[in-house]
Amino acid sequence: MSAELDFIASLRPLATDPGARGLLDDTAVVDLGGTTLVLSHDMIVEDVHFLPTDPPADVAWKLVAVNLSDLAAKGARPLGVLMAYSLKHDTDWDAAFVAGLGKALSAFGLALFGGDTVALPPHAPRFLALTAIGRASGPVPSRSGARHGDAAWVSGTIGDAHAGLRIASGERNGADFLLERYRLPRPRLEAGQRLAPIVTAMMDVSDGLLLDIHRIAEASGVGAVIDLESVPLSDAYLTYAGDDRGARLSAERAGDDYELLFTASQDRAAEILALSEELGLPFSRVGRIEAGTGLRLLDRGEEIPLPPQLGYEHH
Amino acid sequence: MSAELDFIASLRPLATDPGARGLLDDTAVVDLGGTTLVLSHDMIVEDVHFLPTDPPADVAWKLVAVNLSDLAAKGARPLGVLMAYSLKHDTDWDAAFVAGLGKALSAFGLALFGGDTVALPPHAPRFLALTAIGRASGPVPSRSGARHGDAAWVSGTIGDAHAGLRIASGERNGADFLLERYRLPRPRLEAGQRLAPIVTAMMDVSDGLLLDIHRIAEASGVGAVIDLESVPLSDAYLTYAGDDRGARLSAERAGDDYELLFTASQDRAAEILALSEELGLPFSRVGRIEAGTGLRLLDRGEEIPLPPQLGYEHH
Repeated sequence: MSAELDFIASLRPLATDPGARGLLDDTAVVDLGGTTLVLSHDMIVEDVHFLPTDPPADVAWKLVAVNLSDLAAKGARPLGVLMAYSLKHDTDWDAAFVAGLGKALSAFGLALFGGDTVALPPHAPRFLALTAIGRASGPVPSRSGARHGDAAWVSGTIGDAHAGLRIASGERNGADFLLERYRLPRPRLEAGQRLAPIVTAMMDVSDGLLLDIHRIAEASGVGAVIDLESVPLSDAYLTYAGDDRGARLSAERAGDDYELLFTASQDRAAEILALSEELGLPFSRVGRIEAGTGLRLLDRGEEIPLPPQLGYEHH
Repeated sequence: MSAELDFIASLRPLATDPGARGLLDDTAVVDLGGTTLVLSHDMIVEDVHFLPTDPPADVAWKLVAVNLSDLAAKGARPLGVLMAYSLKHDTDWDAAFVAGLGKALSAFGLALFGGDTVALPPHAPRFLALTAIGRASGPVPSRSGARHGDAAWVSGTIGDAHAGLRIASGERNGADFLLERYRLPRPRLEAGQRLAPIVTAMMDVSDGLLLDIHRIAEASGVGAVIDLESVPLSDAYLTYAGDDRGARLSAERAGDDYELLFTASQDRAAEILALSEELGLPFSRVGRIEAGTGLRLLDRGEEIPLPPQLGYEHH
């Protein structure tokens, strides 16, 4: 997908404002003097990010959740959203979508501030863009603050959503839990707000754990090591995929997790574990930051080759 | 296009935040306590809002300009934008678009804060969504403040852009000026900022003057009268279309003008004309606000029937 990277590289000279963070982050951070706005703008497209057979209410949830997940990783409190919506002359789909949107807005206490609609020609895939507007009350973690010696952590479990996508598309059978993890991701808002003052770098895992930790390492000018066996997998995933190296590598290259990936000084470990306990959300230490560059992968202490693709770059 | 209106009506119960202005305005107005944000989120879609043959640099300009035009009508100063961009494996198109985007950002002093890209399947039309973030330093005019007795005004000239669209699509011949008015609209930012404290209601004319003044009247709970012959037409438009009632009605139902439409108390007329002089931008009195509801149209003092369609509702 180097076309997307090339395109973003071509935009970089235009993104000179500090708020753009060099287009290396998932959100923009705009300092209004006393108020720090955190803004995400993610779209989802039929046949790319969701299936035509996905329930429309779940598509609405996902549209909101993927944007809030970006805000969560910056420790921001979301205020509201603006939506661009495509109409396909299918009022049942639209009504179910609006019901799901209402549920998502109410679950996260969000305002719908406005947006835009367009009627699409029949051959066009549906597309939905959302701008989420949040506010940060403290430091806003970036991808670029990881330091040699930090531990790398991840929230929740990894790989579930991709397994759920394969179940949703009829390729495989598996537990409803996995399907739900694909369709109804839970942005880790409270965790992100509480972690923001503790971490050195943070982002959400949307394109695969290995790819995303590689991005943190690259942005921070350091190297990273991931311990394959320490990456948290759900029981449902283990039942679905097994527990060999292949199953673990699959999970760590899988997209759509929407968990938090962060680095922090080793001496913050007790604090992080206490917060995990308090929130009832697992935080697992999955590796560490080291000097140098690049990503290394260990399986029971032994270095193994990196997979040819570290994750998905469809975003 | 009642599908779009129905859809927006179905969203209205979700848009209870005062910042949403009941989804009756072109922007959201978010009060952050000391800072008033003004946000627009408009998208443009190939074959709906632009032609596949339009120069990509002009499409970029238009994407920025249509969003800034919404901010202009609220008297806001734009800070920057977030963009959602679709890639179609056409690097020449993308490069020309980025060059045009750079030109637009620099012309308006805007930051590119961030955004999102997605690679589209070949059959999908290009679509581009932009969120423009602005700040208001005074009152933010809505559509709903027009009062019985106010005069209705419009900036610039009306109908040029639609003539330009017909020229661009090869249907007609006409002056380059008209083509440029279609491809390179000029958001009336300074005029909007200066007018905001003076007007009772303001919006940009994007879907046709008659439709848009009707919207102001409806939102304000009043009626409006437009004097057909007082609507300002450019020399190029008159040469292109003639000066009979049909040509005037065409111009007043035409989309894409991106001029300011506003109402103000009659006793502000001298101030408005002085500002017009200072800015070198014509402001023309085109009608007045009256008691009652609905829109009436006069041609040389005589009331004439409204055309079956007042404008375009493709947005």
